[in-house]
Amino acid sequence: MGRKNDKISNAVIKRLPRYRRYLIELDRKGVEKISSKELSELIGYTASQIRQDFNNFGGFGQQGYGYSVKGLYDEISAILGLDKAYKMVMLGAGNLGQAITKYLASHKEGFQLSAIFEVSPELIGTELEGLTIRDYDDIVDYIEQEGIDIGIICVGSSNAQAAADKLCFAGVRGIWNFSTVEIEVPVHVAVENVQLTDSLHTLAYHMNDYSKQEAAAKESAAKKEVIEGRGKSKKK
Amino acid sequence: MGRKNDKISNAVIKRLPRYRRYLIELDRKGVEKISSKELSELIGYTASQIRQDFNNFGGFGQQGYGYSVKGLYDEISAILGLDKAYKMVMLGAGNLGQAITKYLASHKEGFQLSAIFEVSPELIGTELEGLTIRDYDDIVDYIEQEGIDIGIICVGSSNAQAAADKLCFAGVRGIWNFSTVEIEVPVHVAVENVQLTDSLHTLAYHMNDYSKQEAAAKESAAKKEVIEGRGKSKKK
Repeated sequence: MGRKNDKISNAVIKRLPRYRRYLIELDRKGVEKISSKELSELIGYTASQIRQDFNNFGGFGQQGYGYSVKGLYDEISAILGLDKAYKMVMLGAGNLGQAITKYLASHKEGFQLSAIFEVSPELIGTELEGLTIRDYDDIVDYIEQEGIDIGIICVGSSNAQAAADKLCFAGVRGIWNFSTVEIEVPVHVAVENVQLTDSLHTLAYHMNDYSKQEAAAKESAAKKEVIEGRGKSKKK
Repeated sequence: MGRKNDKISNAVIKRLPRYRRYLIELDRKGVEKISSKELSELIGYTASQIRQDFNNFGGFGQQGYGYSVKGLYDEISAILGLDKAYKMVMLGAGNLGQAITKYLASHKEGFQLSAIFEVSPELIGTELEGLTIRDYDDIVDYIEQEGIDIGIICVGSSNAQAAADKLCFAGVRGIWNFSTVEIEVPVHVAVENVQLTDSLHTLAYHMNDYSKQEAAAKESAAKKEVIEGRGKSKKK
């Protein structure tokens, strides 16, 4: 089952981990076959959207017979590259670096944090989640020797580009960037940005937007009452 | 300067925090005025896209004169609702809850974590980033009494919907959801999902995609060499 198209849109790729999560749950519940219609009811995308998404990668199933849950899960995992293992290093052991290290400690599944690097002398040599924090100066040698795949940037904004340059020089293939800086990398290095603050700000926007909508709805209901009230009094 | 349209697309809203980050940096560097063209060179969106985005909210500036960096920053902050303060509670003090609490400790700016709630008796009563971890059973009273705006869900997937129901019942206006479950809430409650694992999986996809592209490019270069080599030998 090969790929139909070489270039798959980012929107489709972003949906794949979500499909995969639903398939894990279905498999856990003992569901073996699922139609695009049933999947649509669960996940909220239209059945046609789902079929179109899966067609990007060569189909996965026969129309009318439903998809094999386990088969679909395995295929999506393989497409995402989750049938492989990845070795990662963390750059920065401040609050953010500590937070992400803690997070990774409980969400390993194929992604192994091998080492943490830091510049502050007071942190170097201390332990975090079973890993000794190492001197930032040794990072290039470590990455080369250990064949590290991914670098996680949790340093301050002003040092983020320098950290990315170092990672790329040392030969990582991917960067998981938690800094607020948009880093520049060679074309063969993949970057995924996580902007937690942006997400919080988007939430604030929607909260205010909903309040405004609510206020507007109340206002409009009040107006309607006044107008209807007037109408009634005229009718009398 | 009011809003032109009531309904602004999610794509535009998602870009606003990013504009804001660039404007902070420009302000720090002492830049007072900026044109959409200059902003375009910095941020990577087209100048026309930038003008269109800003027009959604009523413009912000006069064409040809450039935008006031400070003015634009203040306006975007106000649109995002960042001119207000938000009180938050954390649900779950496991690895993920601890991680996000640590993160928030260094990224406050208008978002104040007031309390942490947990079910495990061994965690209740202990301290995390200066906050005492409270009994999950007391959460509804606390939210009502303290006027909490946002609940942060860092509980396991199987408890996420129950946590969301509790938060909505208690009266929060927004939920920052770190669980892998897509929660259902009343229409007046805003939800922002952060799927860290999805982000890591997307990175894995792109890493493999780039390697494939590279392999394909090498293959195609090798083929070209063979074909050109043949051509040359024919010419001899």
